[in-house]
Amino acid sequence: MSAVLWANKPALNDAVMEFLAGEDARLDAVLLPYDLLGTRAHVRALALRELLPADDTQALTKAIDALLEQARAGRLAIPTGTEDGHTAIELALTERLGELGKRVHLGRSRNDQVLTALRLYMLDMLRKLAVRSRSAGRTALELASRFELTPMPGYTHMQRAVPSTIGLWMASFAEAFADDADCCDLTINWLNSCPLGTAAGYGVNLPLARDEAARELRFGRVQINPMYAQASRGKFELQALTAAWQIAQTMRRLAWDIVLFSTAEFGFVACDSALTTGSSIMPNKRNPDVAELLRTCAPALAGAMNEIQQIIALPSGYHRDLQATKPPLMRGLQTATAAIGLVPQLLASLHFDEGRMLAAIDGPMFATDRAVELACQGVPFRDAHHAVHAQLDQLENADPVQSIAARTSPGACADLRLDELRERLSK
Amino acid sequence: MSAVLWANKPALNDAVMEFLAGEDARLDAVLLPYDLLGTRAHVRALALRELLPADDTQALTKAIDALLEQARAGRLAIPTGTEDGHTAIELALTERLGELGKRVHLGRSRNDQVLTALRLYMLDMLRKLAVRSRSAGRTALELASRFELTPMPGYTHMQRAVPSTIGLWMASFAEAFADDADCCDLTINWLNSCPLGTAAGYGVNLPLARDEAARELRFGRVQINPMYAQASRGKFELQALTAAWQIAQTMRRLAWDIVLFSTAEFGFVACDSALTTGSSIMPNKRNPDVAELLRTCAPALAGAMNEIQQIIALPSGYHRDLQATKPPLMRGLQTATAAIGLVPQLLASLHFDEGRMLAAIDGPMFATDRAVELACQGVPFRDAHHAVHAQLDQLENADPVQSIAARTSPGACADLRLDELRERLSK
Amino acid sequence: MSAVLWANKPALNDAVMEFLAGEDARLDAVLLPYDLLGTRAHVRALALRELLPADDTQALTKAIDALLEQARAGRLAIPTGTEDGHTAIELALTERLGELGKRVHLGRSRNDQVLTALRLYMLDMLRKLAVRSRSAGRTALELASRFELTPMPGYTHMQRAVPSTIGLWMASFAEAFADDADCCDLTINWLNSCPLGTAAGYGVNLPLARDEAARELRFGRVQINPMYAQASRGKFELQALTAAWQIAQTMRRLAWDIVLFSTAEFGFVACDSALTTGSSIMPNKRNPDVAELLRTCAPALAGAMNEIQQIIALPSGYHRDLQATKPPLMRGLQTATAAIGLVPQLLASLHFDEGRMLAAIDGPMFATDRAVELACQGVPFRDAHHAVHAQLDQLENADPVQSIAARTSPGACADLRLDELRERLSK
Amino acid sequence: MSAVLWANKPALNDAVMEFLAGEDARLDAVLLPYDLLGTRAHVRALALRELLPADDTQALTKAIDALLEQARAGRLAIPTGTEDGHTAIELALTERLGELGKRVHLGRSRNDQVLTALRLYMLDMLRKLAVRSRSAGRTALELASRFELTPMPGYTHMQRAVPSTIGLWMASFAEAFADDADCCDLTINWLNSCPLGTAAGYGVNLPLARDEAARELRFGRVQINPMYAQASRGKFELQALTAAWQIAQTMRRLAWDIVLFSTAEFGFVACDSALTTGSSIMPNKRNPDVAELLRTCAPALAGAMNEIQQIIALPSGYHRDLQATKPPLMRGLQTATAAIGLVPQLLASLHFDEGRMLAAIDGPMFATDRAVELACQGVPFRDAHHAVHAQLDQLENADPVQSIAARTSPGACADLRLDELRERLSK
Repeated sequence: MSAVLWANKPALNDAVMEFLAGEDARLDAVLLPYDLLGTRAHVRALALRELLPADDTQALTKAIDALLEQARAGRLAIPTGTEDGHTAIELALTERLGELGKRVHLGRSRNDQVLTALRLYMLDMLRKLAVRSRSAGRTALELASRFELTPMPGYTHMQRAVPSTIGLWMASFAEAFADDADCCDLTINWLNSCPLGTAAGYGVNLPLARDEAARELRFGRVQINPMYAQASRGKFELQALTAAWQIAQTMRRLAWDIVLFSTAEFGFVACDSALTTGSSIMPNKRNPDVAELLRTCAPALAGAMNEIQQIIALPSGYHRDLQATKPPLMRGLQTATAAIGLVPQLLASLHFDEGRMLAAIDGPMFATDRAVELACQGVPFRDAHHAVHAQLDQLENADPVQSIAARTSPGACADLRLDELRERLSK
Repeated sequence: MSAVLWANKPALNDAVMEFLAGEDARLDAVLLPYDLLGTRAHVRALALRELLPADDTQALTKAIDALLEQARAGRLAIPTGTEDGHTAIELALTERLGELGKRVHLGRSRNDQVLTALRLYMLDMLRKLAVRSRSAGRTALELASRFELTPMPGYTHMQRAVPSTIGLWMASFAEAFADDADCCDLTINWLNSCPLGTAAGYGVNLPLARDEAARELRFGRVQINPMYAQASRGKFELQALTAAWQIAQTMRRLAWDIVLFSTAEFGFVACDSALTTGSSIMPNKRNPDVAELLRTCAPALAGAMNEIQQIIALPSGYHRDLQATKPPLMRGLQTATAAIGLVPQLLASLHFDEGRMLAAIDGPMFATDRAVELACQGVPFRDAHHAVHAQLDQLENADPVQSIAARTSPGACADLRLDELRERLSK
Repeated sequence: MSAVLWANKPALNDAVMEFLAGEDARLDAVLLPYDLLGTRAHVRALALRELLPADDTQALTKAIDALLEQARAGRLAIPTGTEDGHTAIELALTERLGELGKRVHLGRSRNDQVLTALRLYMLDMLRKLAVRSRSAGRTALELASRFELTPMPGYTHMQRAVPSTIGLWMASFAEAFADDADCCDLTINWLNSCPLGTAAGYGVNLPLARDEAARELRFGRVQINPMYAQASRGKFELQALTAAWQIAQTMRRLAWDIVLFSTAEFGFVACDSALTTGSSIMPNKRNPDVAELLRTCAPALAGAMNEIQQIIALPSGYHRDLQATKPPLMRGLQTATAAIGLVPQLLASLHFDEGRMLAAIDGPMFATDRAVELACQGVPFRDAHHAVHAQLDQLENADPVQSIAARTSPGACADLRLDELRERLSK
Repeated sequence: MSAVLWANKPALNDAVMEFLAGEDARLDAVLLPYDLLGTRAHVRALALRELLPADDTQALTKAIDALLEQARAGRLAIPTGTEDGHTAIELALTERLGELGKRVHLGRSRNDQVLTALRLYMLDMLRKLAVRSRSAGRTALELASRFELTPMPGYTHMQRAVPSTIGLWMASFAEAFADDADCCDLTINWLNSCPLGTAAGYGVNLPLARDEAARELRFGRVQINPMYAQASRGKFELQALTAAWQIAQTMRRLAWDIVLFSTAEFGFVACDSALTTGSSIMPNKRNPDVAELLRTCAPALAGAMNEIQQIIALPSGYHRDLQATKPPLMRGLQTATAAIGLVPQLLASLHFDEGRMLAAIDGPMFATDRAVELACQGVPFRDAHHAVHAQLDQLENADPVQSIAARTSPGACADLRLDELRERLSK
């Protein structure tokens, strides 16, 4: 027989139960600590309104804390046949405390319960992502600093364009990860509102202590309207995934650069062999698998975003469909968090071949320098451009170091503004 | 230490190994039987070219068959630390047969091995989907037949439009599921080509018996070009998921109809209570959760399609990114297969409230009948339309049964052509 | 012959030129004013570094201002055969000022030019979206206030759940639009950085006055790294579209509610006939087309987001692919801006049928009230839930007005906190 | 005043009318010929049932044919203020023939009218795509034949793997485009059913000659059920776009290869300068813009697919939302058709640098040959793999020509099976 919180006659058959449960057991295991935090805050809020006596509150709080410890250690199971994590918690409390456990659901619904747990989970993951994004940014910044003026070719359209540096290249990731972390922060700020106490989407006939509960859970504010709380399911998830996608997009660019520059033909970088794998048939291969898999993180997040956007094509009010936003959300955030965690190691393990980089800077790449110089001598830029184009063959191979030193526009090779980036990344 | 088929120095660290492995262990468990079938065909093809002696071939075939039996029974594990299912198979054979196991990979790569296993898997799933789609269609047809002339309102823009029937409504799903099953068949036909023997994307210096291997595996043809075989990874997956999406789209429409028509306000249908659930807070609720979750199948498939489309933005040749197409493919096909399997039960459990349906057919819904009648009497249709519109209030409540009986355009209420649909669904 | 800024030998053939141009002419027409603002700032920044003499600067500024006026009035054309809007501007200046026009491109590339124009465009559109979202929210708030305690049924799973009010329903949109507008603001803040002066992605050998140019254009900060500036193309666009999607998602829910509640069966609301259309065949139809089309705004934005996410699967550096992010960006933002502009009118035109709403509140919807009351009398909530469930039939039809008045949890019917929402929407 | 086919009181205001019309005027212009074909078939079908007299039928047919000629020449306008193309046709007929024009809509709705026009359009575009895909395939095949044994490196993970040939590379596109064209054919077959005569989704009270109309329009069969006909809107569009996406995916791979191989570092191919563009700032640049833009075709189609998948999250029956499937459908198919049309020219213009390709084949790339040779001498393959790996440094530079000649597995360099591909592409 399945354990559910509602009257259940006739029982659902197994195929139906399995279909309804989906991956809930596996996913809810991750959510249990957040759900317990929400439950504890709800219990205390009931007490504040004298809907639970002090000693009951204490007993419940104590039991919840014990479960929380178990859950955090991965030792709190959701028994087979139990409908979901919420049910497991109520049953565990009832098992430990008898009748008292049956009191805990007063004034709440699983609808606001899961909203609260998921919101706490999202905030937690976004904080982790922000920290890891800044950490990746700092590693990139360190490389930018170490190789600040080391020449390498700059490309547009993947064609050689102008002389550039490892410093410029790496600083571009430092600034990107700084922005990505800020995006996490802004997103945290946006969805930092507490849905606890909105029940099934219409509130209840009790003067719940919602403000106090929100403060206890360290939310920035109360999400006021109960119908809107329901409507924010999926909607908020999308915004959280978008922040994660921004990180994934930066990782995709970085990974692409590494894969491209570690071809035999470019030969600018090599991944440490601890981050490459071999082939089952070709004895000669060392492949940059970690970088390649990092590239797939953005598609995974985009797919997850998309799935959620499609699910919530619905009128107001809770629908069971909303439950289906949980797997893509959790899949997406966990993938991103794992992936960004590998980036510092990947960056730190790169070997740069400065000789090959230098050798790849050829004569025509100085054409723009020359056109600008002509323009500074009074030739209109468009004419200077045409003049230089007409005699590309005669461009002698200038000195990359000089070219780089002259590139003084703010942000360019000779003025990377690394200090500003360092400050942004030191939060 | 991790078990890999290639030289491995230094070892990958655990975080990297875990990131690279992803969900492989869980997913590869499902693929093992297909992989073993591919392996057996490869062994026999080697034997045909005398690259394996007869007794070795026999020993290998026997061992593979034993593993196949285990795998099908879910008793063949991929040991922790083993890189993937392919590695597990080669190691299992080596464990059983010693040196002979080490011979099995001659002339193949994991690249064509996984392509073969996944292709067999996709074909299998598509066949299942076709069968289940036709089964769902037949259940809908049965209802169409049973309620062939039972009146119900027809809607456009969700506004009452003209009289219709349960027959017409249900037959619309019968034809949809017939088309969806055909789409599976066409897709099977399209991707029914054998990649085995293309190795890592460039073939090998051995005259492999590819035609014979393809026949043994019952593929319709050989996929000739090895680079194309690699390039079809993801590309073919997308087409398979699209076929599944077609089924999911039909289910979404059906589920939406059920959810809408089982509101208190419409009250046309009720799901059997074995297919509804209750609420943790509201004692009065019975909710159509199964139908609601069926609606989320199309988004899940669309998300999976999308993820795959994004991953394969790549130049020619195998890339590790391709491995990331496996989770969305398998997730998508498994979700669709489970969902469509529930549809016959869901349809069969519907209770129709014929009284409420009849009562919902009101006077203005006969306006189109009237305009057509006027047109048949010689009034230009556009004028007839305006004339009837001008006196909508005076439209007396005509007889739905007559209106329906008069709706004789092929496919309409009075001429559903159920026999044609039955024939299509009886394949 | 086509007008391009670069040497062009041999000429592109027409089919190729057409393919490369795509919709540029039509889209660039919208961007011209932003491009001119960027050009003016660039000219002044050149002057600050004495790269342009004062009188030339004045002449250029004057000419640009004249073009700006034309562009804003829709009278500045991009001549057929001109490669893009940037080219049109440089040619127009050269036509007016001779050689001086050819000087304007010193130190910049079309790469940073288009980035600047698009960023200004995005910021402008996001500001418009924020304003319109708050305006829609205020209209919803007004309705919430006017019908604060008017009873209507509350639904979950589209099944009747508990008594609710028009006030609660409308306030849910007020809060949603307030959040959506905030999301626009946060997004503005995030992408409020100036890419002007990053040239083709590597800066130039000139000490450009980037800080001053950024201030002149009222950007919040300089986007420092030139490679990152290029890499933010598409990446920033995605974030802007996400903010617009949040508004579209709220509109989709609102539109769905209107469509559902204006069915004959619900009959709770009616759109003004100025917002409905008829049928070419059925004289009796009035359809809520505006609401239905509002529903399609979220899919349009999601499709645009998705297209952009897929385009930018690229290594570092400018690629022509980036140009393809322009159509989905502009299509998406323009659709959203037009759609949200209609919402106040749509909301204001709604007719509520209070009688039908009241009549739809039936006995079992008071079950939750009852269970909570029992729980307040000391029965554990889980037992109260089961007790009430067991005697659902005997629930006498209570008074919705009383039930609503008792729903005192913050945000619920009796405590909508409209003042807080009003304050948020009055920015 | 706006011209609509239904009673219109009060008139829609301009902002609403503009929002409702969207891009209809521009898109419907393309659909007019298809709509006229459908209208002619409808007229003849009415005549067959004696719902139109012979001379009226003749007059209408003649007028329709005249309009058809105009429409095909691009000279049939949809007057401003006219609701859509259907309305324009009926008004044009009424203008020419008076009352007779008002008779043409008898027994049909714009719902089946637009379905018919769009289906004819999709079939037409898919036929064009199939033809162009085979044409691209034949050009690739020609190159494969011309450079059948020209050595070039084969890559996996973008790392050098084994010797390969231009023949193998180009044949991979020949086979891909053959499959893609077949996919168009299968899709044509699947959606080759006639919705004409299903009216607004419920048929009409007239015995329409649907079979005859379907034959006249050369459809393969009648789409029987009128509700299903409506439900196939978007659903069929998705399948058509998927077929186009398959072509786009092959183009994306081809374009990526060209971009990658035309970098200075690879230097294997060069696009003809008629297919490259320059830079506004860098005088030295020639960029492969055509190839880069070809890469963006797959994202455009994926975005369009996605938009449509999201729109049709709806219950049964026509909804105005369905109209929003038209822009992404048409945008997607037109983009794909234009893009594939450029591929033969692009392929034919490629210059191959055989010297650089040959020079890029280095010693370790022969490792797999060697391992296979060892295995043929009796060493178990796994041991051979490890043995060769252990002495990679000592692999002397073997002869690519010999290696290629020995690569005899079917489909590989020495056995490309070009004749089979040629046969498939000669349809």
